[in-house]
Amino acid sequence: MPELINVTPLPSRRRGRPPKDASQPGATRAALVRAGVALLTEKGFSATGLDEILKRVGVPKGSFYHYFASKEAFGAALVDDYAAYFAARLDRFFLDETRPPLARLQAFIDHAQLGMARHDFQRGCLVGNLGQEMGALPAAFRQQLRAVFSDWQARLAACLVAAQAAGELDPAADCAQLAAAFWIGWEGAVLRAKLEASVVPLEIFSQFFFAGLSRPITPMQGD
Amino acid sequence: MPELINVTPLPSRRRGRPPKDASQPGATRAALVRAGVALLTEKGFSATGLDEILKRVGVPKGSFYHYFASKEAFGAALVDDYAAYFAARLDRFFLDETRPPLARLQAFIDHAQLGMARHDFQRGCLVGNLGQEMGALPAAFRQQLRAVFSDWQARLAACLVAAQAAGELDPAADCAQLAAAFWIGWEGAVLRAKLEASVVPLEIFSQFFFAGLSRPITPMQGD
Repeated sequence: MPELINVTPLPSRRRGRPPKDASQPGATRAALVRAGVALLTEKGFSATGLDEILKRVGVPKGSFYHYFASKEAFGAALVDDYAAYFAARLDRFFLDETRPPLARLQAFIDHAQLGMARHDFQRGCLVGNLGQEMGALPAAFRQQLRAVFSDWQARLAACLVAAQAAGELDPAADCAQLAAAFWIGWEGAVLRAKLEASVVPLEIFSQFFFAGLSRPITPMQGD
Repeated sequence: MPELINVTPLPSRRRGRPPKDASQPGATRAALVRAGVALLTEKGFSATGLDEILKRVGVPKGSFYHYFASKEAFGAALVDDYAAYFAARLDRFFLDETRPPLARLQAFIDHAQLGMARHDFQRGCLVGNLGQEMGALPAAFRQQLRAVFSDWQARLAACLVAAQAAGELDPAADCAQLAAAFWIGWEGAVLRAKLEASVVPLEIFSQFFFAGLSRPITPMQGD
């Protein structure tokens, strides 16, 4: 399964949060991106109208088109922004040498649970939302969203390799394949957590995933 | 985690496919539902316009409102129809006594892979799509979609209990919890299969799931 599991991380752009002072250069663009990310993590691309974003930020349509050629270009910028923000978050957890490697993944999961609860389970994953909507999106999003998942997968695979080095994970485990399985299932768990308005789906999936790390990888039946 | 794992199946309505002859009573309604299910499995609720459905079926708007009070009522009918159709499909696989229980689940997965490939990975899961969109949907959908997942979970849990009885699965395994983990991850896999236009995510997740069945369930680390 080479397409999904041979992955290269995207360059990490640790830009931090955009400035809040609207008098700064670029602040309007940053405010548009911030509002766009918030709305798209809640409702996805199709259900989010430009007018709603403009109203939230308090800028006229002409100003929007100064920064973005179209809603599609805006969507692509939001994915880039979200990917950079999320990659920095993954680094913060997965490269945290104060914890053993598998505890880093658990800490990421715990943090995600708190984050979803803090937003009353209204916000999910921007990349998952847009992936789900792919049938209604401009074709250019496909490669962009795939690359983001590929990046997350590489970052987790590296953490799992560290777990092998630390003796926490079977040296024969296929870390790329396990990392792929994690993100595939995690997006399903985020979707269900939104629907159930509960952390339980995140808990069930992550417990199942960790249990899967505690056994040797064996050939599957029926293959 | 009682909310997600104590589940009762919905009554099974094996209605089969709606008639294709538009001269039959109810045929217009059935054609609207068929077109709606197809479009919503591709694009979700928010991105699908009524006009697109009416155009596909070739009926005027007045005729639509003869059958459905609103787009929301139409969406609810689509979820009901899809749930009944899918429950019948699950029964066909999970109650198939010509196969051992775990092979029934594998057969369902194989069939789903063929189905997604046949539609060029454009169609996913109607319930998953609407679950993802929950932030943009009328509130009444939440309970309806939850009940569908709960039903699927109960059907799979029963199949896993049969696997225990057949000696294929550890008698100590928590079948309700495993069934919950399956559908949580499966929705993520369907989402990724659409995005990647490939069966690989379905394969990766189902292999991980089956591997998880082959080990005793142990308490999780870090809990």
